[in-house]
Amino acid sequence: MKAIDIIRKKRDGLELTKSEIDFLIDGYTNDLIPDYQMSALLMAIYFQKMSKIETVYLTQAIINSGERINLDQIDGIKVDKHSTGGVGDKTTIALAPIIASLGAPLAKMSGRGLGHTGGTLDKLESIPGLSTDLEKEDFIRNVNESKIAIAGQTGKITPADKKLYALRDVTATVDNISLIASSIMSKKLASGADAIVLDVKTGSGAFMKSLHESFSLAKEMVDIGNEMGKRTLAVITDMDQPLGNAVGNSLEVIEAIETLKGNGPSDFYELCVNLGVHMLILAEITDNIDDAKKMIENSISNGSALRKLEELIENQGGNPKVVNDYSLFKQADYKTEVKSIKSGYIKGINAEMIGRAALAVGAGRETKESKIDLSAGIILNKKIGDMIDLDESLAVVHHNDMSKYEEAKELILSAYIISSEKTAPKKLIHGLVLKDEIIRF
Amino acid sequence: MKAIDIIRKKRDGLELTKSEIDFLIDGYTNDLIPDYQMSALLMAIYFQKMSKIETVYLTQAIINSGERINLDQIDGIKVDKHSTGGVGDKTTIALAPIIASLGAPLAKMSGRGLGHTGGTLDKLESIPGLSTDLEKEDFIRNVNESKIAIAGQTGKITPADKKLYALRDVTATVDNISLIASSIMSKKLASGADAIVLDVKTGSGAFMKSLHESFSLAKEMVDIGNEMGKRTLAVITDMDQPLGNAVGNSLEVIEAIETLKGNGPSDFYELCVNLGVHMLILAEITDNIDDAKKMIENSISNGSALRKLEELIENQGGNPKVVNDYSLFKQADYKTEVKSIKSGYIKGINAEMIGRAALAVGAGRETKESKIDLSAGIILNKKIGDMIDLDESLAVVHHNDMSKYEEAKELILSAYIISSEKTAPKKLIHGLVLKDEIIRF
Repeated sequence: MKAIDIIRKKRDGLELTKSEIDFLIDGYTNDLIPDYQMSALLMAIYFQKMSKIETVYLTQAIINSGERINLDQIDGIKVDKHSTGGVGDKTTIALAPIIASLGAPLAKMSGRGLGHTGGTLDKLESIPGLSTDLEKEDFIRNVNESKIAIAGQTGKITPADKKLYALRDVTATVDNISLIASSIMSKKLASGADAIVLDVKTGSGAFMKSLHESFSLAKEMVDIGNEMGKRTLAVITDMDQPLGNAVGNSLEVIEAIETLKGNGPSDFYELCVNLGVHMLILAEITDNIDDAKKMIENSISNGSALRKLEELIENQGGNPKVVNDYSLFKQADYKTEVKSIKSGYIKGINAEMIGRAALAVGAGRETKESKIDLSAGIILNKKIGDMIDLDESLAVVHHNDMSKYEEAKELILSAYIISSEKTAPKKLIHGLVLKDEIIRF
Repeated sequence: MKAIDIIRKKRDGLELTKSEIDFLIDGYTNDLIPDYQMSALLMAIYFQKMSKIETVYLTQAIINSGERINLDQIDGIKVDKHSTGGVGDKTTIALAPIIASLGAPLAKMSGRGLGHTGGTLDKLESIPGLSTDLEKEDFIRNVNESKIAIAGQTGKITPADKKLYALRDVTATVDNISLIASSIMSKKLASGADAIVLDVKTGSGAFMKSLHESFSLAKEMVDIGNEMGKRTLAVITDMDQPLGNAVGNSLEVIEAIETLKGNGPSDFYELCVNLGVHMLILAEITDNIDDAKKMIENSISNGSALRKLEELIENQGGNPKVVNDYSLFKQADYKTEVKSIKSGYIKGINAEMIGRAALAVGAGRETKESKIDLSAGIILNKKIGDMIDLDESLAVVHHNDMSKYEEAKELILSAYIISSEKTAPKKLIHGLVLKDEIIRF
């Protein structure tokens, strides 16, 4: 078998076999196939696409390139949740304690990554003392005893994905649904989950800007998961404005805590309930949507979800007092308001620009080596549908460097679209992709 | 300017600018742009094509990547000829002396390359003592004094083409007309010719298998040449069977000599006359097709073309007596006949298979390091339209290793298509592509 023949076959629009895909991924992982052949193949895939079965084979080959994590020692059905990423997405921090408090085991492995703000690990680490660097035995014991643990991903799963992603990133071959889906799903499936709830974001702050693309990606991922024998579904959720009001690491943790106290922003609360319902059903805690919803509401109103978060923090070496004393978080030196330069109704908020504003004040990583300022970020005071007066506060920027504020301010002002016409608030849940059904709301 | 943005632009079907193409080729030549980005771009070009103006910019950028040869010290209009390559193509060896004997300067720089047989340089070097390794001053003096010199290409022209071609070869991105045309034309234009006659082969033994592709490639190359201010035209000629009867280095030189004595195969003679007419007109030796044709016929019948070949051989250190004593060429140990296993009319001869048969007995290079057996090759006794009896000789294989003969024999028998129906001989000249006109015969 020769790489060039496989490239030519894909270039000419023919379907690759399992053994051809295995040959490619195995050869690439082991440096037998050079980058320049793989990038030509990736560009051919960009144009010719991959069939459903090719995508499944690719995912399987990527999983086989590294270790698989075995979670068999954990009791119960392990449901994982994955978000395709957006601005202000602190869902795991609120949702994991909710689910765990209701008896479903939450064995979460998470990443850092580049982006406007840190990943779940960075956000959690804004809690003084908390570590996400757990030994495997501690991770498993914590989940069995407390139903919850959140740790960093091991470097040994899906090495092919890391290599492929780095190559796609510099060769304009990121934007292909099969490649995106296999990259996400290989990591999830190698991490040992029994079932998967996918939160596929759609809109200006998401990777997939259109509903059509978002449903296609969701369908592709749901098919891969079920094809591999893992119950998988996807919820299509809005990212046409940031999620909740807080963007930035410690600010988002505080918003998650407030949500567990019943004071969260309505869109973020709605998302937690929606995803949580599917997680509880897949974990077989209940088989009824209304029951699941009530269980989640109760876990918040009776304080059990908040207590589960405190338990998680304590288990992982953090100071659980933060949940009642936010001054224990590192504070930004400056909290500077951005005032509106016109009055009217908020018609749109470009989420990507808000993300770039957060990045400008140091809340995220521009390169792998960047150090995150965990105290920096933005609190949005207005969301789509709200009214605003001239000089009223649009947002508050938390920052430690006055020189960075100006760039953030300009981005925030550009992100807001203010109209004289009344605008309805934005719908949060756009649809559901199940194994055999696609539901659009 | 960033390579990834240019890749994305081409991927999305937009036209690249001159400065973008210059940035790419300059960066690639100087190892600032890695192979994996260039191969992704080449695959994007495969799918999105290049416009005429992009192709001209690319050709210019490739020329600018290295030295340009200055032939200003040579008197007269230097007309170059280039063939896209085929099996049994010994045209330069007969045509160059014809043209030179009629007063047009023939300053030919030629290559070796991979292939079924050697290139023009290898063929010439089967003449005992002859060297194609000329100093620039000797090359220019020979052309000024004798009107003819044939030398190896300097390694310093178009380094970007060498790098690009090697990459295309292993990434399934060879088959794109703009890339093929810019590769050929950059070399020709960097070699200092004033005008160019292109011999674009079409058929089973050619790179372009269909007439449509061959005309497209010819048009692309003619446009580039004229766009760059060099008078350029193309003749589309048949390669659905080998050219002439001889395939192999010394065998082809002998056939070229026979042609200069008036005893050449009719198709090869016709090709020399056809290309020669255009070369004489572009060199402004005459402005009349009928005159040009008569001049060529006379140069053969009065022996002046043959004397010019002897002069070339002598100038470059070879033994000119070979033209009258073929035993001075290195002889193959074995000359083994391939007999027909059926009777009928020759309907087709797969030229590529005949080429592979020649390669099997050592007449060509499989890798850059292969050593050519200059005495090895094949003499075809039958061409399309001929009648053949059972057990009559189809071909004679010249070889030095009995074990290699069997493979060649099988290939030759597979190459011949013999039919009970009478078949007309194959047309040689399919058309002409001029600056403003395409003529199909």
